[in-house]
Amino acid sequence: MVMLIRRAGGLVLGKTVTTEFASLEPAGTRNPRNRAHTPGGSSSGSAAAVAAGMLPLALGSQTGGSVIRPAAFCGVAGFKPSYRLLPTVGMKCFSWSLDTVGLFGASVPDVAFAAAAMSGRDLRVDGRPAHAAPVVALVRTPFWQDASAAIQNAVEHAARAAERSGARVKDMELPPIFAEAVRAHRIVQGYEAIRALAYEYDFHRDRMGPVLRAQLDDAATIDADTYDNARRTTRRARRALIDLLPDGEVMLTPSAPGAAPRGLGSTGEPTFNRLWTLLGTPCVNVPGLADADGLPLGVQVVARFGRDRFALSAAAWLESALARSEMLLTPRSVG
Amino acid sequence: MVMLIRRAGGLVLGKTVTTEFASLEPAGTRNPRNRAHTPGGSSSGSAAAVAAGMLPLALGSQTGGSVIRPAAFCGVAGFKPSYRLLPTVGMKCFSWSLDTVGLFGASVPDVAFAAAAMSGRDLRVDGRPAHAAPVVALVRTPFWQDASAAIQNAVEHAARAAERSGARVKDMELPPIFAEAVRAHRIVQGYEAIRALAYEYDFHRDRMGPVLRAQLDDAATIDADTYDNARRTTRRARRALIDLLPDGEVMLTPSAPGAAPRGLGSTGEPTFNRLWTLLGTPCVNVPGLADADGLPLGVQVVARFGRDRFALSAAAWLESALARSEMLLTPRSVG
Repeated sequence: MVMLIRRAGGLVLGKTVTTEFASLEPAGTRNPRNRAHTPGGSSSGSAAAVAAGMLPLALGSQTGGSVIRPAAFCGVAGFKPSYRLLPTVGMKCFSWSLDTVGLFGASVPDVAFAAAAMSGRDLRVDGRPAHAAPVVALVRTPFWQDASAAIQNAVEHAARAAERSGARVKDMELPPIFAEAVRAHRIVQGYEAIRALAYEYDFHRDRMGPVLRAQLDDAATIDADTYDNARRTTRRARRALIDLLPDGEVMLTPSAPGAAPRGLGSTGEPTFNRLWTLLGTPCVNVPGLADADGLPLGVQVVARFGRDRFALSAAAWLESALARSEMLLTPRSVG
Repeated sequence: MVMLIRRAGGLVLGKTVTTEFASLEPAGTRNPRNRAHTPGGSSSGSAAAVAAGMLPLALGSQTGGSVIRPAAFCGVAGFKPSYRLLPTVGMKCFSWSLDTVGLFGASVPDVAFAAAAMSGRDLRVDGRPAHAAPVVALVRTPFWQDASAAIQNAVEHAARAAERSGARVKDMELPPIFAEAVRAHRIVQGYEAIRALAYEYDFHRDRMGPVLRAQLDDAATIDADTYDNARRTTRRARRALIDLLPDGEVMLTPSAPGAAPRGLGSTGEPTFNRLWTLLGTPCVNVPGLADADGLPLGVQVVARFGRDRFALSAAAWLESALARSEMLLTPRSVG
């Protein structure tokens, strides 16, 4: 990744803080929007540094929700590309089927610019004629009840703003295979992590943080049959998504269960991220909304696998629609 | 991998020689069957060490033909499992879609034993009642004319030996999509290698061997559209193979274009390996045959993706059938 940035003429300034092995163990980074709150994780430092204006762009990686969630909590654009759009070569592996390189920037055109430069693909969405209003499928997911009222309102607000800007908005139910796929994520991640981190676990388990240690202890009980079944569930869910989401439509869904939790004891939950990481779809956190306390609320645009350009373009379109939205102009709050 | 061996109670003795970045640049290792010949590559030292009786088992990796070819040249069993059956974590990446960890052993039950121990899967084929005679599809591949008369004879001989031992043997033609897939292999491998080896190429190109340098110079010209097309071709060929090869059948095909070439200036050609690496299928080199000069001739058993147990079991069955074959008992030569 560092070499691909350099090849594209980029300047690599340094490393930011991540959680332990890019998992859930908080590492002390604070949220620049409110220092009493977590910035999310695992790419905690990347999201915080971009939100604080220290950097225009930062890299991160997502295995559960490690790019989209911190982007949402810090109020910046986050982009988790399709699985393997950007190579993970040289990155410490946690789960080879899930680890995905992602990007943080102030706005959606920024992350699109960086993704285009690093991948050599036509992904830029700046300086182009505005994308035609997309078809937006509002997806509450099987976990809608786990979302705070503020984030539920933010998603509904974004849907209305999209509609006012000319999008066709429809509701989409996810069939039961997707709830099954979310359970498969834990299996796939755990089975692979206990192997990818075999040296660390077998020789230095006592030096791991309690969250990661418990996660790997649990992972050690997963057998090959259970893993193979989880991979079959994944393939079924991928096929189901192709049938469900036509080309030219994006899904709109929460980026996280709410605003950044208070305190630094947790990086929050990847509830609304795991499914898309497992399915390998491009996801964009669209910033612009906030709760009554001024904490950012992220909404997520998800497209079909391989439709990264369309995901970015629809997300940039939604970002503009939110900026035009009257509700934002006065209190800039939907919570 | 090393940790998975240790977890299984294995003893790791050391490292063997590989070619430069596991590509085609010869590294000076000799073939223990005849020291004037190459052992093949890239896993040159692993194949040679097992053939020389220095080690009962050795690891290798295959991106083109780096396990099956040296196993064939050195007259040992080689197993390239289904893509990702064994994790590549910690291995230097050449091509993330192709790099596959493989195994060398004196006989097929040996590699099956090691694969079972490392993967925790039911893959052992020793000490079990003999597998029922499999259905064997003799596949000459689009490159049959590139195979030496000796290897053509070896494959035909193996087919007859299988038939005499009760297998149903049929001919199978590969439709044109498979020739297209072989061309796609070069694209996928090159596009990924020029990124995976970005640091080495951008800063130390002059220190690379001429074969690898030329390979990467060529790879630098591959654009994203060409790569995406090659990946689509790969997916089409994978689906075509599922239609072509019923569950319960294996393909029989050469492991290499002939016996190990004379001299150490080349590790030989992965002509009969690239397709299966790209498709991710399990492949086993079955040893036992030799040419008139006593150089080993390897025949390859290939099964559907994920049918590793069946591939090993059919290969062990064929290994026994070859041992029973009368042609081998007297001159032990088919060339």
